[in-house]
Amino acid sequence: MSDKQHTKESLSESLQQVISLLEKHKLVENLVHKQGVPSHDLAKQDLVELLVHRQNLSELQKKLDALHPADVAHILEALPLEDRLNLWELVKADRDGEILLEVADSVRQSLIADMDSQELLAAAEQLDADELADLAPDLPKDVLQDLMDSLDAHNRERLQSTLSYPEDAVGAHMDFDIVTIREDITLEVALRYLRRLGTLPELTDKLFVVDRNDILQGVLPLKRMVVSDLEANVVDVMAADSVKFHPQDIIDEAAQAFERYDLVTAPVVDANNKLVGRITVDAVMDFIRDESESDMLSMAGLRDEEDFFASVWKSVQNRWAWLAINLMTAILASRVIGLFEGSIEKIVALAALMPIVAGIGGNSGNQTTTMIVRGLALGQISAHNMQSLIKKEMGVALLNGLLWGSVLGLIAYALYSNYQLGLVMMSAMTLNLLLAAVMGVVIPLRMHKSGRDPAVGTSVLITAVTDSGGFFIFLGLATIFLI
Amino acid sequence: MSDKQHTKESLSESLQQVISLLEKHKLVENLVHKQGVPSHDLAKQDLVELLVHRQNLSELQKKLDALHPADVAHILEALPLEDRLNLWELVKADRDGEILLEVADSVRQSLIADMDSQELLAAAEQLDADELADLAPDLPKDVLQDLMDSLDAHNRERLQSTLSYPEDAVGAHMDFDIVTIREDITLEVALRYLRRLGTLPELTDKLFVVDRNDILQGVLPLKRMVVSDLEANVVDVMAADSVKFHPQDIIDEAAQAFERYDLVTAPVVDANNKLVGRITVDAVMDFIRDESESDMLSMAGLRDEEDFFASVWKSVQNRWAWLAINLMTAILASRVIGLFEGSIEKIVALAALMPIVAGIGGNSGNQTTTMIVRGLALGQISAHNMQSLIKKEMGVALLNGLLWGSVLGLIAYALYSNYQLGLVMMSAMTLNLLLAAVMGVVIPLRMHKSGRDPAVGTSVLITAVTDSGGFFIFLGLATIFLI
Repeated sequence: MSDKQHTKESLSESLQQVISLLEKHKLVENLVHKQGVPSHDLAKQDLVELLVHRQNLSELQKKLDALHPADVAHILEALPLEDRLNLWELVKADRDGEILLEVADSVRQSLIADMDSQELLAAAEQLDADELADLAPDLPKDVLQDLMDSLDAHNRERLQSTLSYPEDAVGAHMDFDIVTIREDITLEVALRYLRRLGTLPELTDKLFVVDRNDILQGVLPLKRMVVSDLEANVVDVMAADSVKFHPQDIIDEAAQAFERYDLVTAPVVDANNKLVGRITVDAVMDFIRDESESDMLSMAGLRDEEDFFASVWKSVQNRWAWLAINLMTAILASRVIGLFEGSIEKIVALAALMPIVAGIGGNSGNQTTTMIVRGLALGQISAHNMQSLIKKEMGVALLNGLLWGSVLGLIAYALYSNYQLGLVMMSAMTLNLLLAAVMGVVIPLRMHKSGRDPAVGTSVLITAVTDSGGFFIFLGLATIFLI
Repeated sequence: MSDKQHTKESLSESLQQVISLLEKHKLVENLVHKQGVPSHDLAKQDLVELLVHRQNLSELQKKLDALHPADVAHILEALPLEDRLNLWELVKADRDGEILLEVADSVRQSLIADMDSQELLAAAEQLDADELADLAPDLPKDVLQDLMDSLDAHNRERLQSTLSYPEDAVGAHMDFDIVTIREDITLEVALRYLRRLGTLPELTDKLFVVDRNDILQGVLPLKRMVVSDLEANVVDVMAADSVKFHPQDIIDEAAQAFERYDLVTAPVVDANNKLVGRITVDAVMDFIRDESESDMLSMAGLRDEEDFFASVWKSVQNRWAWLAINLMTAILASRVIGLFEGSIEKIVALAALMPIVAGIGGNSGNQTTTMIVRGLALGQISAHNMQSLIKKEMGVALLNGLLWGSVLGLIAYALYSNYQLGLVMMSAMTLNLLLAAVMGVVIPLRMHKSGRDPAVGTSVLITAVTDSGGFFIFLGLATIFLI
């Protein structure tokens, strides 16, 4: 494999090449299909095309074989369903497993749906226990059962233990590619042992030092090993105070530790300090990326990562829940307006002005909430500083309310030559921004306290409060002072 | 340092301990201050308190000295300004530099503002060229100049070159902690050389193999080095086809390559393949985290990462631009409503129903946009599949419009016993969702094409279109069919 194929430019180039080869492939397929005759009856010209077709196909296959599994995964993700499945059939069976691991969840489902049990079992058998655990949720139940039966006791136990941890625990993301040594040998002996092993697992940056009961004694970074005296004992060179995790630790906290201490791998130990696996920067980066994506998606009201080429019906399902909730909050806001229909009938300008008050409140509330959600995620917000946060946000809201409220009040006055309307506008704006500030702090903190993810749904709640609240405040004040 | 201090539990514990020690510290400070007398005049009881105070202070200092710089940074970030600066004074001067590197930008500014030129220079002198480059944008101009003058030619050149790349280029994030060897030596000689070095830089997972002109020949992973025959030559063990980057490469693409190929470090080379530095997984993770945060912040209309304990005035400045833009779009929507005041006067129910049509359109448009922005970021969307995306999104919009439009139409009918109003409601809803779908695809793609970040501002634009559009469609249809 040349190094060119590792760079991003050539990844999009590869994608373009695959697409054009697929296009040619389809063209000829259509031709054969349209004629509706077996290939030996084809006219001479068609035979030529068929040969070209075969050539294209073998070129495509060669191209695919040369690509890194992650790159094949990327190309599969970028193709519409039909092309994707065509390409998937061209992938060599012995690469199915590693590629399935790399594709996005939604795309993986579309590929698995296209495979029979036999193919799935064959693909799965090339994988380690921790990789199988990643794949397991997407496999049909009977395939998973067959797979369990085909594993030896040791690997079955590993797979079951990995599957037993919740998605946000370190245990669900650890792997078992650990190389262990004893502390009472010299580095020279250790190096001889490594040379006998021949290769070390991906991302190995340290060896784990254990006693004969697999109790972790420390870690021996390779970069320390290669600069140390060969006569030295492992125990004198190893780091005894390394960062380590328990399988039930929250992966998000492990991710923060990886970032803070610049880790590549770290040991995972049970309550007795017995080494059970390791966690790698790779797993942690995947987690960070997934988490930030799912935050972004859920902020926009998408339940799940969506396959770009999923059917319309699947997309509707992914989005309907949020739209339904929004419909309900919108109806609530609409009923609040309904309370004041009498006032609107008398001063129709209220109808034109009220969405401004509601809208700015929603924006301001979402600004506050975003800050708070971030502070919670970073562990920078606690009971200790909640009060000062509310005070500060109310200060910001008051200033913004007076500033933008005055601007709006003047605009309302200019449009409708009614200074009282301007004053009502300014007051309503300020009050709604204060409401947004308080709710913007309180809602995410409450959700966090009750153990829920404050990134999910907070925005809907804030907008519901500031919409209904904004209409109520503005129309209520107008009814009191203008009618 | 015990390993306990590396875990997250003890980080929040440390934070609590520091906070309570600071509280005690402040209590006694206040006491002394209130009395307004020099300490030798203090009553006996006060003297005791003063002694306790001194003891607290030394305890606090000991605690700080034992903490990892990243942990001190975390604690500084979580403290209100006054406490933060009190604590900052207690940090040993020789740790200032490494801690400044770890704190968030906004907090760093507050710390630097509290230091004089002398202190800043002393802190900066402990840092490498690549670390200085991180700090440089926050340093006062004269300090930066003094610093440049104090560097030797080699490091000054490195600092200048790092500063010369834009923030999103690999060159701005690379470091110079590279260990190079020649390809024509045996591993045994290479290991002897490493042992002479004594230590290797953080995150060293591979050596860079260069010729005498520093032209990169390949990389030698440590994990391959320790399992290979000592008699073998470097050239036979190294990987010649390693992933490498150029300083002007986009860091986001490097980040994707790091994730795809599970890299820890990678060489950075110039156009002649000459080794100029390296990029580490650490720098890449920082970038991913920053990027996802700034996406999240800009989606909510915050210009910048905000210090939780910044002044109200600073926060107002950070947020005002977005609020002003929203105000303008809200006024536009309000003027659209103003066009139809006559219709609203006749059927006041329109005022209560119109925000529903606008609101659902905004939500649906933002769902579409979020998908597209993500696809663009992952490189999965291109001209090749844009048409199929628009078609699909319009399908989703049509289905949702008919579904939720019917529900809403029925509700409108139930509330106002006017079946025509129900039909107008359903049609307006469907049309506004279709508008949202088209704009949700077109706006981010246009922004991407014109070279701007589609995550920034897209949401405002979509909401502006669906608000004004929704009001116009609904009130327009009502005016045509109901008035």
